[in-house]
Amino acid sequence: NTDCSLDSIVDERINEALQDLEFNPPRLKISCTSVTSSGRLASCPVGNVVTGCACGYACGSWDIRGETTCHCQCSVVDWAAARCCRVTQQG
Amino acid sequence: NTDCSLDSIVDERINEALQDLEFNPPRLKISCTSVTSSGRLASCPVGNVVTGCACGYACGSWDIRGETTCHCQCSVVDWAAARCCRVTQQG
Amino acid sequence: NTDCSLDSIVDERINEALQDLEFNPPRLKISCTSVTSSGRLASCPVGNVVTGCACGYACGSWDIRGETTCHCQCSVVDWAAARCCRVTQQG
Repeated sequence: NTDCSLDSIVDERINEALQDLEFNPPRLKISCTSVTSSGRLASCPVGNVVTGCACGYACGSWDIRGETTCHCQCSVVDWAAARCCRVTQQG
Repeated sequence: NTDCSLDSIVDERINEALQDLEFNPPRLKISCTSVTSSGRLASCPVGNVVTGCACGYACGSWDIRGETTCHCQCSVVDWAAARCCRVTQQG
Repeated sequence: NTDCSLDSIVDERINEALQDLEFNPPRLKISCTSVTSSGRLASCPVGNVVTGCACGYACGSWDIRGETTCHCQCSVVDWAAARCCRVTQQG
């Protein structure tokens, strides 16, 4: 009867549509940018996270403050840089 | 006949539903945390990847061991820190 | 009449299917690798972004050139390493 064919048609159509969607999920990528500031602090723009830091005077000792700020610890540091990344849609 | 209107109704409904889904895909973001340890090794929790490392004594020479462990290479190092990130659902 | 039941059946089926999809979106994760080169430059493979850099001779001063290349700034540097990450599908 119409009812049963109705189910199968609907299901089939949905699966085809979802098949298409599932194999082409919205393609995401990571986008990064660097923020450099004089002194020993450098902060990422809102919506970004810090993935790493660089410091002046060859200093490799740093920590992250408040999730988005690089803090260079060496006694003498003239600049700090934060590597800031977020997830964005491809294309 | 019912059959043809059936197809178009089903397709239309699906496209509307998917339109909605496609423009509002599950919003993902990157979440990061830092793990600091004394010595020259610092490891990320399971499910995270290392995106960068910091070391004591201003050391900027490091490498990654086994995907999740920062190894500070300088001869004198008193602590190591790993920046650990993963993809999580927004909100 | 068949028409109204048609709508509700179609909608119901779609919502069930999307429910399933929405709660099990394609699980994504971050995958990273390191690229080490002699000299002061190290570049990530296409499709990756740089999340952090390491340098020889304990140098912690670096910057990113052209989105995918680590540049170690210290006067004496014998190697450079880039931490390269991208979004991939889980499993």
